[in-house]
Parts: sequence; C-alpha cells; structure tokens
Amino acid sequence: MSMKLGIIGFGGMGKFHSKQAPKAGVTVIGAADIKEERVQEAIEAGIKGYHSADELLADPEINTVILTVPNHLHKEMAIKAAKAGKNVITEKPAALNVAELDEMTKACEEAGVCFTTHQNRRWDRDMLTVKKAYETGMLGKVFTIESRLHSGNGYMHEWHLYKKYGGGMMYDWGVHLIDQILFMMPDAKVKTIFADLKNVLHEEVDDYFKIILKMDNGVTAHIELSTYILKYQPRWLAAGDKGTLVIQSLGGVDGAIYRTGQLLEKLPPQIAESAAGPTRQFAPVPPGGIVEEPLPEIQTDVLDFYRNFSDVIDGKAEQFVKIPSVRRVLAVMEACRKSSETGEAIAFE
Amino acid sequence: MSMKLGIIGFGGMGKFHSKQAPKAGVTVIGAADIKEERVQEAIEAGIKGYHSADELLADPEINTVILTVPNHLHKEMAIKAAKAGKNVITEKPAALNVAELDEMTKACEEAGVCFTTHQNRRWDRDMLTVKKAYETGMLGKVFTIESRLHSGNGYMHEWHLYKKYGGGMMYDWGVHLIDQILFMMPDAKVKTIFADLKNVLHEEVDDYFKIILKMDNGVTAHIELSTYILKYQPRWLAAGDKGTLVIQSLGGVDGAIYRTGQLLEKLPPQIAESAAGPTRQFAPVPPGGIVEEPLPEIQTDVLDFYRNFSDVIDGKAEQFVKIPSVRRVLAVMEACRKSSETGEAIAFE
Repeated sequence: MSMKLGIIGFGGMGKFHSKQAPKAGVTVIGAADIKEERVQEAIEAGIKGYHSADELLADPEINTVILTVPNHLHKEMAIKAAKAGKNVITEKPAALNVAELDEMTKACEEAGVCFTTHQNRRWDRDMLTVKKAYETGMLGKVFTIESRLHSGNGYMHEWHLYKKYGGGMMYDWGVHLIDQILFMMPDAKVKTIFADLKNVLHEEVDDYFKIILKMDNGVTAHIELSTYILKYQPRWLAAGDKGTLVIQSLGGVDGAIYRTGQLLEKLPPQIAESAAGPTRQFAPVPPGGIVEEPLPEIQTDVLDFYRNFSDVIDGKAEQFVKIPSVRRVLAVMEACRKSSETGEAIAFE
Repeated sequence: MSMKLGIIGFGGMGKFHSKQAPKAGVTVIGAADIKEERVQEAIEAGIKGYHSADELLADPEINTVILTVPNHLHKEMAIKAAKAGKNVITEKPAALNVAELDEMTKACEEAGVCFTTHQNRRWDRDMLTVKKAYETGMLGKVFTIESRLHSGNGYMHEWHLYKKYGGGMMYDWGVHLIDQILFMMPDAKVKTIFADLKNVLHEEVDDYFKIILKMDNGVTAHIELSTYILKYQPRWLAAGDKGTLVIQSLGGVDGAIYRTGQLLEKLPPQIAESAAGPTRQFAPVPPGGIVEEPLPEIQTDVLDFYRNFSDVIDGKAEQFVKIPSVRRVLAVMEACRKSSETGEAIAFE
C-alpha cells in the first residue's frame, strides 16, 4: 500500500487518525502542529513531528495529508498541500461552503492529486441498517426517515464554540447527518429543504437544528440534532406501508422492525374512551396486533475509508467518498441556513 | 341550566354527547338521524327521535343543537339551525374551510344565536401539563414543542375514508393538534408554516402529516400524526434551556421532566469511541448527570365545555371556545395543505 500519511493538526482527530490508519495498512509518517506539546506527542508516538504545515509538506516521504485543523483552515491548507503535490484528505466538513470547496477541487485537479473527505459515518452500522431496510423493501414504500441525535452534554468545546473557526453543530454533525441521508438514497433528488437552526445554550453557534428534506422518491427525511434534549429520542425511525424500523442509539443495533399482523385485514375496531371523548383511530391495537422482527444484519468496517483512498491513489479503485457528493452536502447545508434565516422553503434539485 | 340540547346525527359522537352532556347538567331533548335504526336507538335511550334535522329544528323544546354529522354537512346544518333560532355547537372541524365558517358565523350573528365548536381536546390532561410547564417557565426558555400521535390501526372508518365528506386525518385530528398548540401559547404569532401531508394507506385522504410552525416567541412547534407508525413515539416532547418534558401517551401523565445536574458547570467531558470515530458531544453523560422530576399536576374536567356554553347562552360567562380561535385553526389547516401541495413555506401572521 502506497499511502504515506502526514497529519496536519495533532488534536483529538489527528491522534485518532494516527492510531486508526495503521490498522488499515497505511504508513503514518508524521504530524504537524503549532503547539509544541503536540509536536512532542507525535514524536513520543513514534512518528515525525513538524512545527508547521509547511514543514510537513516539504517532507518528500509524505504523499498524502489529512487535515485535522479547525474548519476555517481547510481551504488554505488543502490548496497548499495540493500545490506541494500531496493527495488531500480533509476532515469534515470539507469546507465552510461550496465556493471554498470548488477552489480546493480546482487546486487538486490542477496539481493532479487525489482529493476526498473523511465522511466516516457512511460506515455507521445504524445508518447502514436503515439503508438496507430501505433498499430491500423490507418496510414497503417508505414515507418517512427520521434521523435524530440528542445529547445532554450541553456545551460544545474548544474551537467548535466560535463562528470564525467554523464552529457549531451544523458544521460538526449536520454534515454527517445530511450526508447519511443522501448516501442512503443516492438516486433521489431533494426537491425542497426547510430548516430551523437555533442557538439554545450557545451565543455564537447553532446547537439545535431540524431539517426537512422532501425527496422525489416519496420519502420525507427529518434530520434533528440538539445538544440539550435530555430524554433522547431514537437515533432512527423509518416508516413504510409495510412496517416501521426503529434504532435507539448512535452506532447501535438496539432496535427492531415492527409490523402489523391481522390489523390491515380490518379486525373489528376497538374504541378507547379517553377523558375528552372516544377515539377509534388512536385506540390500542388488539393484543398481538403489532409484532417485532429483528433488524437486518450489516457488515461494516470504517477502515475501508483508508483502504479505498489508498487504492484510489494507486489507481486501483473507484473513489468511495467522491467530491461531488461532498459538494452536494455543503449545498444542502447552505440551503438550510438560508431557509432558517428567511423562513422560506428552498427549492433545491 | 337552560341548555336544551338536540343532537343532529346519532352515530358515535352523537351518542357520546347524549351520555356526556347530562353529566354536566344539560337536558338532552332528542336526536335526529336519517337512519331509522338510530332514531329507534334514540327513543330506546329515553330521548325523542327525529327522522330529519328539519323535524328536530321544528321542536320548540330545543334551544341548542350539536352537529355530529359528517364534516361536509356542518355549514348547511349550522345555517339552518341558526335560522330556526337555535344556538349552535358543531363537532370539529367546525367547517371544511374558513369561507364556510364565515358564512356560518354570519348566519349565527344575524339570528342572534350563540355559536361554538366542540374543541374538547383543550381539556386534555397531557396538553394542559405541557401548557403549565410552558407558562410557569419550568423548562426555561422553550425552543421546541413536539406533539405526536401515532397509531398502528392503519385504516380509517366510515365517512372519514372519503374526501367529499371531509374525511382524512387533517380534518379529524389535525384540527385538535393545531388547536392545542395555538391554545397553549395564545399570545404567540405563527410566523411560518411548513407541512407535509401524505396518503400512506388511503387513496383519497391524508393519513400522515408533519407540520412545522415557527412562532414569534422562539418556539418551533412540530405536529405529527400517522395512522401507521408502529412504534409509537411520545405524545409530547417540550425542550427548553432548563429541561425537557416528555409525556408518552394520549391523555396520559406517564412522563417526567428531565434536567441536568452539574453538567452545565462544565464537568470534564467524556469521549465515546464509536466504531467510526470519537465523539465528545454525543458521549454518555456522567452517571447521575440527568435527573428526573415528576410532571406538574393538573385539574381538568371536559364537562366544563357544556357548562361554559350553557352559561354563555344564559349570558353569564365568557365563551371558552371562541369562533375567532376556531377560524385561526382552519386558516392554519388551509396553509398546511397549500404548503404541502406547493412545497413552499407559508408566511402566516
């Protein structure tokens, strides 16, 4: 395998890649950081330490860099790396907006280097389970897919707290949650986007959003995140005319598919006498009326991200995280911000 | 108490009122239906039976009618009743649209009779619990209120299956769920409405909807109903910057308020190593970090609907379900249909 990786930014995600990439057979040459203690940490970890991106980019041993610096630096560093002849991997979001990404793409094309983004959550077991159920028709005709991520941790940390560094939850996680929906249904066009972003606990950056994507395949996707909803709702709910799938937690397989037994054959309806009046539609179903099935099984290995891009560099594989798909996610994010600010729904594709 | 009630339409809701109203001290004089068996049922229940609305309206003993006929008949019957000098109560929805309601209102004004709608779910314990939490600031600054109603019963019944009779779930339950949100926050203006209505199992009428109301008080209300989501999600979720309230079921008090303890003082963050990468924001909170409190207690008696309108007729009380509030709900419903058809968000108030 020919990928020789340099890591630019040796914070949490930089260290993560230094440990993960070797598991996929990638050679990590070294890491750069402007903080001296992190340079030392790199050396102690047995790789080279550089005091700047420029120093790292000057090392001919490195043929590929991964950018694990704050989001506002991705553009500048990616262009610099491309000009130095290095293949480029950015952390997500690839850029702050579509215009930045287009500059980066142009620089990589001109330099003849490969370019991708670490959209690692395309390998999430929970998302792939929903994708499989959708693709195989297990739920019949799907009408809604709801993707939620709730946390009681409240405040964000470090540079994510600040607008100028590309902070906020839309950049940090919106980019994953939107990417997953588009990845799940790659042939569906997004007709309309309506979004609501809020600052609940943070003054500068968004920490809550709800996004509605009306797709041309009949699915309405609902994406929601909060750093301060304290009774977490299921990570996924997908419903079709033949069943409902629910997965409770991030990365989890703690869920089931729910189906009706004889109900759709029109059993005699029950009537529930609620305090305010009777209801047939929302009366309990007869016992045994809703049955549970296990979720489909999924094989996934997030290390395939490195393996694939290494093969791309070697000219042996089709790139898995293609830049047009990354660009589409950034475009959806821009539409979300516009929708939230104006109160309008944005006609998209 | 001077209300002498005649019931027009002796199906499920007609029979319901014949039993409920007397508990509030109302005298039920009789019921009209075009089906002979129902006329007999009225007589067997110890009240007069009439074979038509006209026959009932001709009875001078009756001073008030309640319309429990299919929705498309409300307008015609309300106007007829007003012209006969009867006070008018309609079942919900009061009318199929705002224009119909305005005709009905005019007829009642011209005849000098009182007019209201049986928005009985303003007395629902679950909704009033959320309202109390909102009003008393128990959740801090509320940013989202989510109202959901899920059922596994699938198909609707009788005339609700047909468009021409005013069928479908938006008319049957949307009218309640929207009314509850507006009733909960009476001073808030609805700035924007975005809605998605679907026919999942029914060819003619809607059986799924999701409605987003962006309010000028900072709350985004989310209203959702499905007759075929088989893992029911909580009836209510309300979240603010001081806590989250969840109620599980319709009419229920099976829920709690959730708060964070020391978390917002910035305890050292935990990092969760999920398969695809680390996350601090969505790591589990430290043990004991989220605490549970009981819901506030609520007193409610839906019989107050009859008591209030009887007092209104006697000139002794302010009307509880006022027609302008009923009209506002119908206007929201019209905006929802328009939004769903066009894909646009509707600027409302």
